[in-house]
Amino acid sequence: METKTKAVKLEAGEASRAKGGRGVSIFDLILRIVAIVGTLGSAIAMGTTSETLPFFSQFVQFQAQYDDFTTFTLFVIVNAIVCGYLALSLPLSIYHIIRSRAAKSRVLLIFLDTTMLALLTAGASAAAGIVYLAHNGNSSANWFAICQQFQDFCQRASGSLIGSFVAVVSIVLLVILSGIALSRH
Amino acid sequence: METKTKAVKLEAGEASRAKGGRGVSIFDLILRIVAIVGTLGSAIAMGTTSETLPFFSQFVQFQAQYDDFTTFTLFVIVNAIVCGYLALSLPLSIYHIIRSRAAKSRVLLIFLDTTMLALLTAGASAAAGIVYLAHNGNSSANWFAICQQFQDFCQRASGSLIGSFVAVVSIVLLVILSGIALSRH
Repeated sequence: METKTKAVKLEAGEASRAKGGRGVSIFDLILRIVAIVGTLGSAIAMGTTSETLPFFSQFVQFQAQYDDFTTFTLFVIVNAIVCGYLALSLPLSIYHIIRSRAAKSRVLLIFLDTTMLALLTAGASAAAGIVYLAHNGNSSANWFAICQQFQDFCQRASGSLIGSFVAVVSIVLLVILSGIALSRH
Repeated sequence: METKTKAVKLEAGEASRAKGGRGVSIFDLILRIVAIVGTLGSAIAMGTTSETLPFFSQFVQFQAQYDDFTTFTLFVIVNAIVCGYLALSLPLSIYHIIRSRAAKSRVLLIFLDTTMLALLTAGASAAAGIVYLAHNGNSSANWFAICQQFQDFCQRASGSLIGSFVAVVSIVLLVILSGIALSRH
């Protein structure tokens, strides 16, 4: 009798859980789209950054382009990879809306999302470090700030970081959402 | 009858799940200790990095210290924070070994672990970007490599990154393990 009551309770709980699971899955889909837009925007903004100065001197370079900095090149590549991954994960996210009790595919998403989170955070932070240096320079290493010369370049590079960090926050939320969905099983 | 069979099956499965869950929880504890050692080592190695050059010239600074670079200071702070968090999370990890079916506390750990993962990856990557620049310089920005002058400083700073990246990999695994443990509920 006891086990029977337990089973009935379990089934009664399933309906409300499925509803909550669906809400989580829809939020998951929205966050993925936000992250896609963020990474795509960052990759395009940084990938098209270049500035040619109208004057010429012995010490200042004529031109600054994003691929003069290895870190910025990496930043574009990492954003493109994460954007591609997120686009490929959309079908699985939609599948979770329909079948909100799927467990194995959610664990797979946690694995891939966490890896991509580490990758994107690494790319974005390294680029942020270089942007900081470009703005402020470093007196100990005799590295001078280049943002006085390359104002447009610096503004563009700084701005392109925003999309990436929005995507980082979205992916952190995605991992937590998957955890919440799994805990309802 | 059907519901009764289901309930019996559920209970039969619980015992084997609890065993698997315990293995996951013990691995979780080990990974946390690895990450604590990694972040602590990184913070200490970077925090004690300084080099005074035995000669003096007009262009080269006498001394390089980790806190000449904002990014390196941040690196030490971030490693200390993550190390402290991991130490505080140990009791919860041990609690999961005893009660392997706890769900809410695992979701809490996923949330905190993911946030700390993003923080640590950001700190470590930004520092790695600066270390790369110290080794290779950047001709477009007229930033010269400083590792010829400050060899010890550079080696120490580069080495201290290792512990952080070991910790990053450990925390990625921690999040995945929590996901696996939750999916077994």
